[in-house]
Amino acid sequence: MDSTVRIGREKLEQFCTNVFLQLGLPEQEAIDSSKILVAADARGIGSHGVGRLWRYANGIRKGIMLGTATPQILRDTPISLVLDAQGAMGMGISKKTMEQVISRAKTIGASFASIRNSNHFGIAGFYTELAAHEDMIGICMTNTAALGVPTFGRTAMFGTNPIAISVPATKGRMFTLDMATTCVTRGKVEVYAREGKRLPQGWAVDTTGKGTADATRLLDDMLYQRGGGMLPLGGEGELLGGHKGYGLAVLVDILTAVTSGGDFGKSVMDSEATSARVCHFFGAIKLEVFRDPQEFKKDMGRLLDELVATEVADGCDRVYYAGLKEHEAEAESNRSGVPLTEKVVESLRKIAQESGVSFIL
Amino acid sequence: MDSTVRIGREKLEQFCTNVFLQLGLPEQEAIDSSKILVAADARGIGSHGVGRLWRYANGIRKGIMLGTATPQILRDTPISLVLDAQGAMGMGISKKTMEQVISRAKTIGASFASIRNSNHFGIAGFYTELAAHEDMIGICMTNTAALGVPTFGRTAMFGTNPIAISVPATKGRMFTLDMATTCVTRGKVEVYAREGKRLPQGWAVDTTGKGTADATRLLDDMLYQRGGGMLPLGGEGELLGGHKGYGLAVLVDILTAVTSGGDFGKSVMDSEATSARVCHFFGAIKLEVFRDPQEFKKDMGRLLDELVATEVADGCDRVYYAGLKEHEAEAESNRSGVPLTEKVVESLRKIAQESGVSFIL
Repeated sequence: MDSTVRIGREKLEQFCTNVFLQLGLPEQEAIDSSKILVAADARGIGSHGVGRLWRYANGIRKGIMLGTATPQILRDTPISLVLDAQGAMGMGISKKTMEQVISRAKTIGASFASIRNSNHFGIAGFYTELAAHEDMIGICMTNTAALGVPTFGRTAMFGTNPIAISVPATKGRMFTLDMATTCVTRGKVEVYAREGKRLPQGWAVDTTGKGTADATRLLDDMLYQRGGGMLPLGGEGELLGGHKGYGLAVLVDILTAVTSGGDFGKSVMDSEATSARVCHFFGAIKLEVFRDPQEFKKDMGRLLDELVATEVADGCDRVYYAGLKEHEAEAESNRSGVPLTEKVVESLRKIAQESGVSFIL
Repeated sequence: MDSTVRIGREKLEQFCTNVFLQLGLPEQEAIDSSKILVAADARGIGSHGVGRLWRYANGIRKGIMLGTATPQILRDTPISLVLDAQGAMGMGISKKTMEQVISRAKTIGASFASIRNSNHFGIAGFYTELAAHEDMIGICMTNTAALGVPTFGRTAMFGTNPIAISVPATKGRMFTLDMATTCVTRGKVEVYAREGKRLPQGWAVDTTGKGTADATRLLDDMLYQRGGGMLPLGGEGELLGGHKGYGLAVLVDILTAVTSGGDFGKSVMDSEATSARVCHFFGAIKLEVFRDPQEFKKDMGRLLDELVATEVADGCDRVYYAGLKEHEAEAESNRSGVPLTEKVVESLRKIAQESGVSFIL
């Protein structure tokens, strides 16, 4: 295992901003993109954090992701907005769009948006929490490159397709569910492959559509598109509900890509030359359309209190609610610095050298 | 296994309507409630069909469910509606509320409603399809009596809490995801107990919070609230994503009960004297707020076509999409009659005798 160091949050944000500025991003987009990447690391979701900075740097240098693309407006109504990102980086346009959704919801009570032709946007829960801070229910989804196999199938037809929802409670607390609709992501399989461990039953199937424990072979089959892939939440077949996770993954394709006229299913593909053009969905509903927001948040607080007070299973420590672990990790990051593995720090040092940005970490 | 007979759909609906009328329901509510119950059997979801008629009959006779309750309006805005059902039967008020949601969404683009103090409302997918027939995305959820155990816990803190979403496609097809957020429902455990079979790993935990295969003991522990219960989608712990199913179950409690100020979590309880007062959520979003509805449905059709054309796993027959099995079953029921087990027919005969309604099946 990599050892971990902690780096001050603002310093890390400033470094990423400097890199993005040097790559030609407009100032606000550079700042927003950095904040979103660092938020992932701060919450303990390193898979979506600054460890991806080199991908963005490469993407921008190769012209796969565009720092300065002007989005095309496809539909614009008091309750909705549909955009073509024209290949923009995902973070800046997503934050702006969620801010638009929140602003429209303030007037009309609820609002929705979708974006096509975009790129990876970091953690979905970042956008939903923007809404929750405004006393709204925030919703966000994105499709991703196909790697998930439908129930009873043997080839990849959808991505990890995460769903995020945030709902605010009293005392600044928040319920934030941010979950891939596949059982696990490819990143977890890569860890198992590196450590030579067998995959748990229910994570993935091989090229015949049967459950596999062979991480290395699975990654190879996925890379060369020979078939096989990750299973939806609920695992193989219907016995443990795999058809439900499959349905949720398809729902994400519908709300992100069918609403925006973008790519869905197996046509969302990474290749050596390009990264997949993905679609996003954003929504916000004011608490006030249902109840007095203070009463609403009081009941939310009571619900969260009751959940953490659940009697604990033998051998376990605590019962959580969605988002609690991440919020505790973030509080610790704000006190003690954002945790990064040595390997990620090394990649940042390399980016600094390549782009002529001073390595201030 | 019970043998199955098929009964004409209209005849079955008429019989149930006669029973509800005899129990004192207003005519439209009697008709609506019958249609919704029979729709479940027609789609092959017998657990939510006319096999429950005796529960409604008992509920109404005992005054636990009220046939003629007048709902109280808690909030009424152009985009939302919140009701207290005052103990009404769930089906009639739910259908009327979804019709209100659809009507408001026609004007404003989207609309949402929640209801507290209601009773079992049949299949959630019935309501979402009402919206999909109007070129809208339909959403419906309900909380139910607590029987599900949070990740790392040992006592029941949420119900089977289903989520349903329908989206229309070309050629009258429809994506309808209608799923309990627990791995399976209590009904499945009852079948395993009757057949003396061991439960699959991932369905349930015992009173210590550890996985159990003992169906009979589990049902007994649940009945006497000794602890243990059903696992969320994703099973025990976090390895297969149980925390995701747990998050989805809590989300349903939030959208149904926190929005309406109703009961949530462990306080939603059946007892011998009463059935749990539950809360519902309804939503509709017009396709048109995103795209031309015909273009939208064309892409939906393409998505559904691609999914059923997925290469099939060895030893499996077909790949489905959410709702396809149920829609095929319904088409067969419309041709050949609605399938009922002999046991259910017997229960209907008994209801006919008790209530003085002629048994026309």
